[in-house]
Amino acid sequence: MTIKAYVYDAYGTLFDVYSVSVKAESEFNGFGKKISELWRKKQVEYFMIHQLTGNYKPFSEVTRNALLYTLKNLSLQINEDALNSLMQSYLELEVYEEVHATLENLQNQNKKQIIFSNGTYEMLNPLIEKRELNHLLNVLSVDDVKQYKPAPAAYKHALETLGVEPHEVLFMSSNFWDITGASSFGFKTAWINRAGHEIDELGIKPDYIYKDLKGLLE
Amino acid sequence: MTIKAYVYDAYGTLFDVYSVSVKAESEFNGFGKKISELWRKKQVEYFMIHQLTGNYKPFSEVTRNALLYTLKNLSLQINEDALNSLMQSYLELEVYEEVHATLENLQNQNKKQIIFSNGTYEMLNPLIEKRELNHLLNVLSVDDVKQYKPAPAAYKHALETLGVEPHEVLFMSSNFWDITGASSFGFKTAWINRAGHEIDELGIKPDYIYKDLKGLLE
Repeated sequence: MTIKAYVYDAYGTLFDVYSVSVKAESEFNGFGKKISELWRKKQVEYFMIHQLTGNYKPFSEVTRNALLYTLKNLSLQINEDALNSLMQSYLELEVYEEVHATLENLQNQNKKQIIFSNGTYEMLNPLIEKRELNHLLNVLSVDDVKQYKPAPAAYKHALETLGVEPHEVLFMSSNFWDITGASSFGFKTAWINRAGHEIDELGIKPDYIYKDLKGLLE
Repeated sequence: MTIKAYVYDAYGTLFDVYSVSVKAESEFNGFGKKISELWRKKQVEYFMIHQLTGNYKPFSEVTRNALLYTLKNLSLQINEDALNSLMQSYLELEVYEEVHATLENLQNQNKKQIIFSNGTYEMLNPLIEKRELNHLLNVLSVDDVKQYKPAPAAYKHALETLGVEPHEVLFMSSNFWDITGASSFGFKTAWINRAGHEIDELGIKPDYIYKDLKGLLE
């Protein structure tokens, strides 16, 4: 079976969403880690609920709303400057250390590689430029169709854009809900299990499980 | 505006899902609270992912799988007896203390009252019998249509079964995702905010917020 396209999730997979904890710590002393964790948790919860209830809102808005909830929940003083500063940190997330070398290696093998993310282009483009990945990856956002992963309609958009068959796509994500959706849609999947989690009991087995992207070169 | 039907969510709203911690503690000493919390968290996550990916599985199976993950995640010894014993505890959840009196009061006012839940009839019927609510409430399950709340198709099933207009339904839930779905569908909603949570930033305001069901009698 030949893989014709390598498709990467962005947040958590290429970029460390918890790296916002540094700026969060400088804005809210002693709360950096807590903010980064609750922010991500609510961000995922919120876009899932929007998708489930049929009320799509762009990821930038979801991300800002999740941050707003997080600060309220932690009883922190909310001001526009701190909100903007933390939102800005989402455009400057740290990239995991093995990403560049792995993507370059695959590019040298003439593999087609794209990011396919729930983020908007306004969030993704500055980020991949900042992290110098723009020569390695094209960017595709669910915002084109306003259907969030893990809904089948989202993966369908990626498939149609790529113009290949489902089994010719290898989809990489660190988020198991994303692997579940992609695998159930018919993509080949590699779960990048950075955190060493147990596999979720969702009736789905990824085709591959790696602890980071270097596994793709095996 | 006249309310013609009082519709109650079950888990978390009438019944305390964390009351499984007692049996969990007796099966796994020192882990009762942790099990009850992670079990519920994964249960909600799992049915949402099944709904999002279009792979409905009944709530009994989802609940068992969430428990299985929970025990693995906590590195606890899994055996069939402990699993069955904990699953049994879901048929014997504690009912919140104000529930009976409130429902009886509303019944005396000739209000139509039903439970509308993601649970299956096999889970709900023994529970409302055990907690002596069967003379007060009819039971309706999303399992009839195999669409989980908070998807619009789920609330539509309740509406069609009741044969009323959306704004004639008052829907009660302690789960904000459920309030979001019901409100977005067009029901009047009362968020039973037992835990004193901040309101989620999902663009939805419940019509009423009460700390327990007694608020309905105001």
